[in-house]
Amino acid sequence: MRNPQLDAHGELTHLLTLEGLPADVIVRILDTAVPFTSIAERDVKKVPLLRGKAVFNLFFENSTRTRTTFEIAAKRLSADVINLNIGASSTTKGETLLDTVDNLCAMNADMFVVRHAQSGAPHLIAAHLNRTGRTHVHVVNAGDGRHAHPTQGLLDLFTIRHYKRDFRNLTVAIVGDVLHSRVARSLIHGLTTLGTPEVRAVGPQTLLPTALSALGVRVCNDMREGIKDCDVVVMLRLQNERMHGALLPSAGEFFKHYGLTPEKLAYAKPDAIVMHPGPMNRGVEIDSAVADSDRAVILPQVTFGIAVRMAVLSMLAGN
Amino acid sequence: MRNPQLDAHGELTHLLTLEGLPADVIVRILDTAVPFTSIAERDVKKVPLLRGKAVFNLFFENSTRTRTTFEIAAKRLSADVINLNIGASSTTKGETLLDTVDNLCAMNADMFVVRHAQSGAPHLIAAHLNRTGRTHVHVVNAGDGRHAHPTQGLLDLFTIRHYKRDFRNLTVAIVGDVLHSRVARSLIHGLTTLGTPEVRAVGPQTLLPTALSALGVRVCNDMREGIKDCDVVVMLRLQNERMHGALLPSAGEFFKHYGLTPEKLAYAKPDAIVMHPGPMNRGVEIDSAVADSDRAVILPQVTFGIAVRMAVLSMLAGN
Amino acid sequence: MRNPQLDAHGELTHLLTLEGLPADVIVRILDTAVPFTSIAERDVKKVPLLRGKAVFNLFFENSTRTRTTFEIAAKRLSADVINLNIGASSTTKGETLLDTVDNLCAMNADMFVVRHAQSGAPHLIAAHLNRTGRTHVHVVNAGDGRHAHPTQGLLDLFTIRHYKRDFRNLTVAIVGDVLHSRVARSLIHGLTTLGTPEVRAVGPQTLLPTALSALGVRVCNDMREGIKDCDVVVMLRLQNERMHGALLPSAGEFFKHYGLTPEKLAYAKPDAIVMHPGPMNRGVEIDSAVADSDRAVILPQVTFGIAVRMAVLSMLAGN
Repeated sequence: MRNPQLDAHGELTHLLTLEGLPADVIVRILDTAVPFTSIAERDVKKVPLLRGKAVFNLFFENSTRTRTTFEIAAKRLSADVINLNIGASSTTKGETLLDTVDNLCAMNADMFVVRHAQSGAPHLIAAHLNRTGRTHVHVVNAGDGRHAHPTQGLLDLFTIRHYKRDFRNLTVAIVGDVLHSRVARSLIHGLTTLGTPEVRAVGPQTLLPTALSALGVRVCNDMREGIKDCDVVVMLRLQNERMHGALLPSAGEFFKHYGLTPEKLAYAKPDAIVMHPGPMNRGVEIDSAVADSDRAVILPQVTFGIAVRMAVLSMLAGN
Repeated sequence: MRNPQLDAHGELTHLLTLEGLPADVIVRILDTAVPFTSIAERDVKKVPLLRGKAVFNLFFENSTRTRTTFEIAAKRLSADVINLNIGASSTTKGETLLDTVDNLCAMNADMFVVRHAQSGAPHLIAAHLNRTGRTHVHVVNAGDGRHAHPTQGLLDLFTIRHYKRDFRNLTVAIVGDVLHSRVARSLIHGLTTLGTPEVRAVGPQTLLPTALSALGVRVCNDMREGIKDCDVVVMLRLQNERMHGALLPSAGEFFKHYGLTPEKLAYAKPDAIVMHPGPMNRGVEIDSAVADSDRAVILPQVTFGIAVRMAVLSMLAGN
Repeated sequence: MRNPQLDAHGELTHLLTLEGLPADVIVRILDTAVPFTSIAERDVKKVPLLRGKAVFNLFFENSTRTRTTFEIAAKRLSADVINLNIGASSTTKGETLLDTVDNLCAMNADMFVVRHAQSGAPHLIAAHLNRTGRTHVHVVNAGDGRHAHPTQGLLDLFTIRHYKRDFRNLTVAIVGDVLHSRVARSLIHGLTTLGTPEVRAVGPQTLLPTALSALGVRVCNDMREGIKDCDVVVMLRLQNERMHGALLPSAGEFFKHYGLTPEKLAYAKPDAIVMHPGPMNRGVEIDSAVADSDRAVILPQVTFGIAVRMAVLSMLAGN
């Protein structure tokens, strides 16, 4: 079976997951994003690449931050952006997901940016479009359940490449709630595909999925061991709902063992960078002394995220 | 008294209801919509007819679907669209409807697209604008109470004309909850005005208004009799809140008697088309075997709906 | 310490409050707004002054009306507008206000229009931007707590100047709930700075702040005395939550004593104008016979408000 993200010529037609996406396609997205980083610094931050195209932000799960980054990316490409608050729409009236999609296609949608609490929802939509021959309509996964968040993974890769140039000699530690993190999952697939020799998952056993070693990831329950000699430390957000559950004793306990402090960061390489997908819980997974230091590249991640999303939308539109 | 929808020269100045709208005006709207259907297929789906105009979506009742179609139509005409979530606004602060309208006019609104739970609200606004001489500001009714939904009626007429060419030899059956349906009401007025010889309302007695025969509509409680030799079958949405009320025994019971199955559709003409205003309840008013067949023109209705709304907005703006 | 609203050359770099803003800066804003009033009457109501700029409406407190006026102003200047519903965003996920701002800056925001229930929030953001050298990002206070609402104050000043030409011989009465009104506070600072010889605050003792006389404001508990020989009467909105509190006997009682009727207005000068920031409570603070008379300039205030906001955004952007 063909990769549902690629067309017959191997061109990107949907972006659903970094799992199984060929290295050359990932690199092409990163390369395409480079010139878009400078558009953001221009006085007029717009290019006409998507003029007259309709981009639908289909958010079945609320996420102001992610929706905003896609809205900005699409508007900088001069697209028309339609934000759909699906909680308030026909899905609640008993319409099926695919009927909703068919209706929006009938309004001549060009692209769907889909966030859904259910893993696989964007795949379902893309497969439906492929099966019914609507190859001119494209799907971008903006986060589905615990499964994938490919544009976040791509912006993480872009950031790492920007600061470290080559993946083939890097040690990257991903710290915290890897179990529930689609961000971690996407980044791991991307790093592996691009040849990163050592990827570590660091955290308490309860927050690390059991299948990690099958992905070639080294599991560490001890923070100092996990961080030792790393080039890149990626701190994950500890979601509030986990902090009071059975998986963790408390937020304070978590910070003591895994919160990134200058003292713990000293175990990494002297030029290691610190990343975080945001929003940060200061004093839970990261200390302000680290978050606000020049080791942190958390805000550049956000800026690169716009460029990467512009690259994805623009490539899907055939540019 | 002059028709409040027309100016002194008989030109459309508001679109409030299809009741009493002259046939030539309806035909002009349908004719104007034709070229807009091809804009949607262009690469750049935009024309500058409403550039610099401000279209306000004034939705006092939530409807993501209808709001989205108007937003798309207005953006394709290059208008600036302002979405107003009125639940959250000054109406809840005790401001009157007309004070809200006056305020938005003072912000130089050019058009109001109004959805309201109260029948007559768009008329009230239009009459207020007419009375105070603001003839450059236009109102489009996007659904008011049980009263009217004229752009839905127009897209239904457009669809019927597209597939059947001439109204003057057609039999059209409207099936289901006619009593609570502004969609049905608008369509009936449009069909009658354009000379359709036979319009039938089909459903259980509890869901058919008593005044139907005064409108020249034939009432049928039996589905097979109602559908027999029809050219067009319009299935109405059964609203969830009706399914548990006193008006209906159950959704399953409704489907048994009135749900459109291939077996029942066989009573209509072999080339009959099936329409539905959406969102569909599959297995309640329509069977998937019909909804997904080539007899169904439900998705073309959506596409034509954008073109019809572009035609209305564009005519109101004086093009 | 330098005024945080002005840059080293005395140019406006944020608009946070009218308190302490030099008279020449206020006058320059009003002068800049004048030509924008005529853009609103053009057929194409757009100028390209902010093309490619990203204006973020950061509303931590709901206000459809104020958000809409800023959205219209920014769109008329051709900016890209991003509306952020902050209740639904990362702030609820434990992110700090300044982390949210840093993230949006990293998305290359050019301007923040900030509404916040907490007095001082826009100052906090502006100070943070100044301290971190991001002088190309600008903040406009769209209302913070009971503190300030400078664009409302400016549109009030614009309206008064439009009808009365010169502030230096005017008597202005501000009537009603001065205690809780950021509108009143901003207007008082503006009037004083522009040399208005007599500003009066009129209302029951419970609704007037004690510090008024320090601002050079004359306090009147009697409406007829307060309105006598005024050139301008500004009626404040009585907020619903005050009507049932300990501060007021009842809305009816308030109307009897302070509601603006034609009879009470007769105490003012024959050419006195009546203003109200909206939304009005007819029959509470103002009688319809006054609100709908030609003495009321309440709707022109709204129109001028768009022009004033265009002027502010445009000056901040360096035009």
